[in-house]
Order: sequence, then C-alpha cells, then structure tokens
Amino acid sequence: MMIVPGMSVRRPVVRRVLATAGAAASSVSRPDTLAVEEPLEIRLGDDPFSVTMRTPGHDLELALGFLVAEGVVTGPGDVLSARHCPDAALDRDGRPTHNVVEVQLAPGVPAPSRSRHRQVSSACGICGTESIDAVRSRSVFDVGADPTVVDGALLAELPERLRAAQRVFDSTGGLHAAGLFTPDGELLCLREDVGRHNAVDKVVGWAFSAGRLPLRATVLQVSGRASFELVQKAWTAGCPVLAAVSAPSSLAVDLAEEAGLTLAGFSRGTRFNLYARADRIS
Amino acid sequence: MMIVPGMSVRRPVVRRVLATAGAAASSVSRPDTLAVEEPLEIRLGDDPFSVTMRTPGHDLELALGFLVAEGVVTGPGDVLSARHCPDAALDRDGRPTHNVVEVQLAPGVPAPSRSRHRQVSSACGICGTESIDAVRSRSVFDVGADPTVVDGALLAELPERLRAAQRVFDSTGGLHAAGLFTPDGELLCLREDVGRHNAVDKVVGWAFSAGRLPLRATVLQVSGRASFELVQKAWTAGCPVLAAVSAPSSLAVDLAEEAGLTLAGFSRGTRFNLYARADRIS
Repeated sequence: MMIVPGMSVRRPVVRRVLATAGAAASSVSRPDTLAVEEPLEIRLGDDPFSVTMRTPGHDLELALGFLVAEGVVTGPGDVLSARHCPDAALDRDGRPTHNVVEVQLAPGVPAPSRSRHRQVSSACGICGTESIDAVRSRSVFDVGADPTVVDGALLAELPERLRAAQRVFDSTGGLHAAGLFTPDGELLCLREDVGRHNAVDKVVGWAFSAGRLPLRATVLQVSGRASFELVQKAWTAGCPVLAAVSAPSSLAVDLAEEAGLTLAGFSRGTRFNLYARADRIS
Repeated sequence: MMIVPGMSVRRPVVRRVLATAGAAASSVSRPDTLAVEEPLEIRLGDDPFSVTMRTPGHDLELALGFLVAEGVVTGPGDVLSARHCPDAALDRDGRPTHNVVEVQLAPGVPAPSRSRHRQVSSACGICGTESIDAVRSRSVFDVGADPTVVDGALLAELPERLRAAQRVFDSTGGLHAAGLFTPDGELLCLREDVGRHNAVDKVVGWAFSAGRLPLRATVLQVSGRASFELVQKAWTAGCPVLAAVSAPSSLAVDLAEEAGLTLAGFSRGTRFNLYARADRIS
C-alpha cells in the first residue's frame, strides 16, 4: 500500500491484545498511519464563505465542487481563478498549511448572500420539504431527463471496484471514498477524504474544472451511507445515479425522487436495493 | 426489533438479486425501514444559531449538547428554557414538524457572536493548531486531571455492548450511536442519529439537563470513526475517555493529547488501539 504525503501521517499508537487461552496479553507501542484532518477555509474573493474539516489534497477541486453544490457556480466560465492563499499560516512544524483556498468569481456571477442558508427557515418552521425546495431552486441540471441505463451486475460490483481503487492509495482505514464511473464501469475519478461529503465535492470539482458538468451518463459510488447532502451534491452536478455502500436516509430518498435521480444502496456483489428511479438499472 | 416512531419510516424499495448458478434473478418491491433525516434549527431566543440535519428524537438534548460543545453553556443554570417552537410549520402530511428548538439563555449568559466561528481565520491562515486553540478557549473542564481508570477487557467489549443496546431500537441499519458508560460498564445513556456528531450531542445534552457535567469517570463509546469534532465534544463535556469503533483522524489525536483525553479506536472484542493517554486503560 502507498502512503500519499499530506493525506496521512505516522503517529505512535499503543496496540493492546488481551490474554486468551492460547496467548498472553501484549501491549506494543509502534507507529500507525492516520488520515490527516485539517480545516480548509474557502474564500470568495476576500470574504470567508465556508470552513470544512477535510483531508488535504485536491483542495481546489474540493472548493469548486462545494461551490457547485451550493449553486454558486455551474461551469468553468463562472470562475476566474482558484488558488491556495499565498500568505497562509505555518503549521507547528513551520510548513505552510495550504488551508485557505481563494476563489475569484467571474464578473457577473453573483456572490451568494451569507444569509442564504437561513432563508429556508425565515418562517418559524423548517422541514425536509423546504430543504428540498431550496435544493431545487439551485439545481440547474435536469437529472430526471437523463436516459442513462446501467447494468445491474455492474452496479453490484462498484463498491468492490471502489475499494480496489482505494487500496492503491489508502493505508489508514480511515478515509471515505467517492468514485465516478461510466455506465461501462470505467473509473473516471476517485477521491478520498475523512468526510464523505468532501470526497464527493472533490469529484465534482474535478469534473467542473474539466468542463464535464453536467455529469450525464455517470454513476457516483460512495462509501458509507447516503444522506440528503450527498443526493444534493449529485443533483447539482447533474449526475443521474448515486450508489451508496449502505443505507440512505428518508430525506435522501425524498430528494432523489424529487430530482428523478436513481438512488441505490446496500450493493453487495450480487444484490442491491433501489430507492428511487429503479427504471435506470437493467 | 422495534421501530421508534419518528426515527424511522417505511418506504418502498426494489430489492434486486442477480442470477447465480443456484438461483434465478429476482426483483421484488417491498417496504423497507429507513432512518429519518430532517433539519433541526436551533435558536437562541429569536435568533437562528445553527441548522443541522438530524434524526428526530431527543431534540432538546441535541440542542443543549450542541450548545455545550460550542462553549455557550456549561450547566443547567445557564439555560432558562428549551422547547420546540410552538408555531412550527407543517410537513407535507399536515403534521407539525417539530424542527425548530428555541433555547432561552439565563440572564448574564452571553449569546455567542455569530462571527465567532470565523475568528480562527482572521489571519489569512487556518490550521489544526488554531482549531485546537479555539477549542481550548471554550473548554471549561480539566479532562487531563480526571483520575479515571478503565479495565482494558471492558473497553474492548464496549462496541458490542453498544450494538446490543442499539438492536433494541434500530431496525434501519442507518443510524450511528453514542453510548455513555461507567468504568464498570453500566450504560448510562444511548442515543442514535444519522449523524454521529448529533448522537454525541444528544448524550451530552442528556447529561447537561441532568446536571451531570462534567462527565467525570465515564467512557463515551461511538460507532464509526473519531474526528476532531467528536474529541471536541467529549472535551467540552468533561469526558475523560472517548472510544471509537474504527480509526481516529490526525487532528482527533492531536486534540486528545492537548486535552489529556484518552482516545481509543479499533476495539475488537480482545484488542484495541490507544492513541492518547494510554495510562488510563489498565
């Protein structure tokens, strides 16, 4: 297994094994590999927009993918530049942190109001339906009309393909992954992070930078569960099929139905569940 | 297994099984149980403070536990009242959503500035060290001085005890759990949520309401991984031992060291790893 600098660190860990019938107890201190978690601040021009805890690497993609999900940008023409802030602070080892990304929007692209996230709760009430309305208002791609069909046998295999691709990078056991596949099973992009939502943002940011949005005719396979937020990110990126290794939440299913997005879960080699738009899986 | 109303819903799901040598392919539509995910808005008086996606249930505890982690309150005397907002909106089935909780702080308890989360990034730089400084500034409990000792054999068992307790409630396969145990292994409080951080907030909010903060002489066992945020929540609640089912992140370990908090991971029946303050585990 390979260790990617910046994404993982070595730290001492005490491994204890209790005594059993066949073996004495042991307690050994040795280095272990941990996934790095550091804050990333995303700025629009000089204004702080968001701070997320993430695993360093592909930070510009993370920032751009996040802005896609927030409905701020939809294509490369909306962004003048994205770069790490040059006068960033030093970490305790004296190295630059690279923990601030500055995005300059193109002229005419409105910077979002900082209070926008509050708008869904301007009345004394807030519910999933309002959250869905808010996402609908910022999704520019008609995912429901995407005619992509994916073979069920392929869909069932994707979690293992994702894990196989991860094995090349991941030696921490602590990273979530998101992989973008073609309907033929080709892996277009794999990204990892301590946060599942960040891994998806990085994939979307990759596609954004490559001018590949909307993500027509693709399948986004994620480790773990499918939350509302992940369906939101798939929808705003124009991806017609989201597959999770385990269960979706109720609101994830509601939003997938609203978007016309295929939502799969519990893929296990020879079986899977479909929670919305099952017609896309042959 | 029991289904708790409001925490899970029944939805149609298509279960597909691929053809194998011994069996034909099948595709069956039937109801499945999903974990509910809904937004919760936490208000301080009339002012929106935060919105989180959560599984309904123990909302007041969630709100209070979140305020503990943010350093806003430290004991029941800091809060006049916490209640669901009475004129909350209706969901699409015409039922009240109960998705807004209003907390009234006691006179003299300062409401946090909305820009406080930005303060760590007032310079053009942000890093884990600054994040740790920010948590230290809001932690009122000296976790490092807690003399609690926990038996290693018990620690190794806690994930299974947590899962056993969950089986009583959870039929969705989609809920994270946090369980608060005594050093003798007694389960004091179990809470579940689609979000691991919410499950911890609910446990801390329970303890807050019961006047049990700081959580001296306890072990907080969580499903999944240990992030910076979970260590922060354990520290601000005064809990000396945090144990996760799988891996911690680098910054989780850094913060645990800073706090003097014991951080365990990968507990597996007869073995576990210790990432900080191993001296508390006998």
